[in-house]
Amino acid sequence: MSDEWFHVLNLIGVAFFSVSGTLMAFEKDVDGFGVVVLASITAVGGGTLRDVLLDQPVFWIAQADYLYITYAASIVTIILQRTSWEFPSYTLNVVDAFGLGLFNIIGIEKSLINETGMVIAITLGTTTGIFGGLIRDVICREIPMVMRGDLYATACLSGGLMYAGLFYLSVPYIFCILGSLATTIFLRMGALHWNWEVPIFKRPGG
Amino acid sequence: MSDEWFHVLNLIGVAFFSVSGTLMAFEKDVDGFGVVVLASITAVGGGTLRDVLLDQPVFWIAQADYLYITYAASIVTIILQRTSWEFPSYTLNVVDAFGLGLFNIIGIEKSLINETGMVIAITLGTTTGIFGGLIRDVICREIPMVMRGDLYATACLSGGLMYAGLFYLSVPYIFCILGSLATTIFLRMGALHWNWEVPIFKRPGG
Amino acid sequence: MSDEWFHVLNLIGVAFFSVSGTLMAFEKDVDGFGVVVLASITAVGGGTLRDVLLDQPVFWIAQADYLYITYAASIVTIILQRTSWEFPSYTLNVVDAFGLGLFNIIGIEKSLINETGMVIAITLGTTTGIFGGLIRDVICREIPMVMRGDLYATACLSGGLMYAGLFYLSVPYIFCILGSLATTIFLRMGALHWNWEVPIFKRPGG
Repeated sequence: MSDEWFHVLNLIGVAFFSVSGTLMAFEKDVDGFGVVVLASITAVGGGTLRDVLLDQPVFWIAQADYLYITYAASIVTIILQRTSWEFPSYTLNVVDAFGLGLFNIIGIEKSLINETGMVIAITLGTTTGIFGGLIRDVICREIPMVMRGDLYATACLSGGLMYAGLFYLSVPYIFCILGSLATTIFLRMGALHWNWEVPIFKRPGG
Repeated sequence: MSDEWFHVLNLIGVAFFSVSGTLMAFEKDVDGFGVVVLASITAVGGGTLRDVLLDQPVFWIAQADYLYITYAASIVTIILQRTSWEFPSYTLNVVDAFGLGLFNIIGIEKSLINETGMVIAITLGTTTGIFGGLIRDVICREIPMVMRGDLYATACLSGGLMYAGLFYLSVPYIFCILGSLATTIFLRMGALHWNWEVPIFKRPGG
Repeated sequence: MSDEWFHVLNLIGVAFFSVSGTLMAFEKDVDGFGVVVLASITAVGGGTLRDVLLDQPVFWIAQADYLYITYAASIVTIILQRTSWEFPSYTLNVVDAFGLGLFNIIGIEKSLINETGMVIAITLGTTTGIFGGLIRDVICREIPMVMRGDLYATACLSGGLMYAGLFYLSVPYIFCILGSLATTIFLRMGALHWNWEVPIFKRPGG
């Protein structure tokens, strides 16, 4: 992936998760600048962990625009909430799914650039995707999305496998990205809409 | 800030948060050495995250005295609790507010030394201030202070802006520190005492 | 400790904690690949934090076999759960105690190799031992084991002191390891079986 693609996709992913953190803060009646704190942790949490694990400079400290977009996305969402704008109830899940798909791709790519193998790359893609939202849910004392039975980690992993597959077939980047994004978002949205499940444990009578 | 100032203020901040972690452990009936674990996480959590984000050596591993002061402050608090000493109920909030103010200053300063811009420095000041207490609250399954509506993040941010302002005006360090500390502690204590609020979201009929 | 010992013990510790994470996921009805995510966080969480604190390459990114063993241990546990195999109810605690003892030793050793003093080494041993399980419990919204009154941190610390003592007496490695492991596991299991306690705070009438 060219540096520019990487940068733009990362900015979009950060913005999506910042909106998702702000919406969660609204649901939880967080007040004052706690809203912006929660939005920021959600937006940069996953990527921060990835960079620390890879021993790379943390992306939002190396380049200040990530922080600006995080704050801007959160403030715009707050303003929309304060005006008459009504966010439909599924907004949080949709925004979260797009962020998940984008961060997954970015994590895999950054991992491969740092010469990890593909298993570690897919692991770090999932890490980048899920950790911001995981920390958001833990702070808000929600059951973390990744622990619920609706294909959260599974959608992320499948998107990672799709990206890896298309990448090995030397498909142009734009299609790797679109294919992986489509896979993650389709599985995640489908699971929420049609209650798809991957039952891992067999419960007696379950 | 001279290295010595930095060191002394950091030791004081670590001691304050260690006391705050121990008091929370008392409230939560934590037993055995779990008390010391909780005190330590509270005391060094925020600064550890800051150092990892800046890719600097973690302060309490580079210099062992931070760990000694953490353990000492926790043990002294435990001994006082075991004797007839009664801590007033607001002790935790007061100690936490002082730690918040001190760590905020230290985070900003360490950030600027590492040549980040002022926006990132203020972000890292707030990070240093709030994260130890945030992890403490998450582990104890309390609603994190930063998520409640009493100017926690706001006081931290305001203290940061005050410090930055005085710093730019080339005011002597001692007044930068006192001004920022006074701002953070005054706002935080005032919010707890007079129920000041910064309503971010507008609720219908709220 | 020779590198090979280190590697083998670390693989065993990772496997134990991966099993413990999977068993917790079963108790909590986690579904889909969330199980594997929880198992992985439990298995590599403590060691990851240790390596980041020491500014060393994260062990499971430097060597991919740690990740393979994590996934394998989780999948084998899932398969056993799905077949008629019934895990006794104390399995989680036993597996967790062994992992705790092993990671404690590994953390101390890796710390000493990086030339920290003994106080920091014992602190990092405890960190390595308890953090994977702590994150697992926080994500699952359980009261963290380390906060409960049954010698969790105390057993870890005692095992660390035993290791340090034997190490200073120049006892052969295998006995350092066995002595430390025996101390941690005996104290932890004893506390669970006979309700041993270390009352830190004195409660009126308590």
